[in-house]
Amino acid sequence: MHVTPLRWTGESLELLDQRLLPGEEKWIACRTAVEVRDAIRDMIVRGAPAIGITAAFGIALAALRGDDVRAAAEMIRKARPTAVNLMWAVDRMLRMLNPFPPSARLGMTAVTEAEAILREDVEGNMRLGRYGAELLGAKATVLTHCNAGALATGGYGTALGVIRAAVDAGKKIAVFADETRPYLQGARLTAWELQRDGIDVTLITDSMSGHFFQQGQFDAAIVGADRIAANGDTANKIGTYTVAVLAQAHGVPFYVAAPVSTIDPACPDGSRIPIEERSTAEVTEVFGKSIAPAGIHVRHPAFDVTPARLITAIITDRGVLRPPYASSIAGIVNG
Amino acid sequence: MHVTPLRWTGESLELLDQRLLPGEEKWIACRTAVEVRDAIRDMIVRGAPAIGITAAFGIALAALRGDDVRAAAEMIRKARPTAVNLMWAVDRMLRMLNPFPPSARLGMTAVTEAEAILREDVEGNMRLGRYGAELLGAKATVLTHCNAGALATGGYGTALGVIRAAVDAGKKIAVFADETRPYLQGARLTAWELQRDGIDVTLITDSMSGHFFQQGQFDAAIVGADRIAANGDTANKIGTYTVAVLAQAHGVPFYVAAPVSTIDPACPDGSRIPIEERSTAEVTEVFGKSIAPAGIHVRHPAFDVTPARLITAIITDRGVLRPPYASSIAGIVNG
Repeated sequence: MHVTPLRWTGESLELLDQRLLPGEEKWIACRTAVEVRDAIRDMIVRGAPAIGITAAFGIALAALRGDDVRAAAEMIRKARPTAVNLMWAVDRMLRMLNPFPPSARLGMTAVTEAEAILREDVEGNMRLGRYGAELLGAKATVLTHCNAGALATGGYGTALGVIRAAVDAGKKIAVFADETRPYLQGARLTAWELQRDGIDVTLITDSMSGHFFQQGQFDAAIVGADRIAANGDTANKIGTYTVAVLAQAHGVPFYVAAPVSTIDPACPDGSRIPIEERSTAEVTEVFGKSIAPAGIHVRHPAFDVTPARLITAIITDRGVLRPPYASSIAGIVNG
Repeated sequence: MHVTPLRWTGESLELLDQRLLPGEEKWIACRTAVEVRDAIRDMIVRGAPAIGITAAFGIALAALRGDDVRAAAEMIRKARPTAVNLMWAVDRMLRMLNPFPPSARLGMTAVTEAEAILREDVEGNMRLGRYGAELLGAKATVLTHCNAGALATGGYGTALGVIRAAVDAGKKIAVFADETRPYLQGARLTAWELQRDGIDVTLITDSMSGHFFQQGQFDAAIVGADRIAANGDTANKIGTYTVAVLAQAHGVPFYVAAPVSTIDPACPDGSRIPIEERSTAEVTEVFGKSIAPAGIHVRHPAFDVTPARLITAIITDRGVLRPPYASSIAGIVNG
């Protein structure tokens, strides 16, 4: 069985509770748009494409129940601010539903559209993976940050989709996963899903990546994205920028892997991307155990912005984009 | 009361168990050299100068009990490989004890020498702090990594000694402490001791420092050292090299603060510094709770080496060293 973060039962959306992995595999059923909004906000599901797909099913649930789909859409849109796939999926659902009168029964229409978003995401990741795999040598060690894997998408993954496609193509790929504090997506999710697929993975702390760059360990760094501005600046999980600076300092290619739905052509550059500041408890507590003195002041930006100049290429489901990104992105978005 | 990691009772060395901080302040009494060796190896005490002082008292305990001090010294020397202060303190104790015949009762002589090493360390840190404070502006935000504080030394600290001296001099200093995975010395120790002293401290994860460098948050980065080679290359807690690369990329001065006893003039450059690889459980478990899938492959280098070219200055108890370090270090070691 391939790893997937969500499944549609016909009347509910079941989400794998990613907060409990890898210790426990528990599925949570969402039956209303409010439950879907809460699941996104509380990070039961995370990863930009997975959030978008979940949002689409949340709107479909509202439609099935005869709830106000437009109100549901606006509520879900505000669940998290940085990942643009959330807004993209909400807009796509609304574009499909808007021609109908408020009284129309749109349940099955909405479910069909959400299922299309899910299916297209997985198919897109498999294409993206094949494009990206061509950038790797026959034998390569790749650093990845956070989890841009099957769990972050409809399935197969973006950054990890490239890894999977390279392995499928017979390349000998070793992955270093940094643990990705504070939420530990690398240790809990990336290590888990690569281990399940039998892919060679080594876990390190975030603080170690510099040392292994210095030792010449890495042939490439590949990460996902939460939002890509029109000029190529990319918001992704906090710590991505540090990896990009290290990659450049050591002459190692730094790749962003994301579907075109992660590109926000209305956002001119990274300075316009809203960066979510999350709870300080997520920094000071690990599985409920406090690791810092009570009352300590904490900052917790959940994302950072990597400027386009540090990005060697952006691997999308419609091909590999190269600098200058303003034109390569405009070409793919309009093309 | 000022923070100190150790106290000599006249017949035992009491160590504050730094593995339990900040949740619990528990003192552990060491009465034999074996207990001292175990305490260093198991990181009840850590920090290069504190390890050296602890080792000196371990040899003093052997002398007090009439045990073989030379055998005790060689056993303690091997407790951890990277911090050269350990070897420096053992050598200093042996230099003092060697002229005496094996049958001599050397207990009080050895205790007096260990107490001198402790006292000189604290006095040295206060001088070092004043030298370093002059490098900071009247208002500055400083990033530090790991814990080079009172807890890592006989008292007052090296990197945090500079902070304390600057605050004492009336400067307005804000500190960002990164948590320093895997052992969390930043979250557990630096945050705790600065909070106790009423110094403005903000906790971040290691992955966030790049973002705050990018935002122009830092006026300087100051770290301690476990071993400084003759050319200035510096081994320190894993993650230090990443901070140094980030500092250079953003034009922020990067300072190493350490006593002259941390300099190893016999070590020509960083490639010759042994890097300890510690237990994988220290990465995969936080306070006994597993954060990664069972059986995952892990790397855990406990230190990294920052090349001299990334170090703006080395702040010592005998003054501030500037590049080229080969000559400034030779001058201070021989002078």
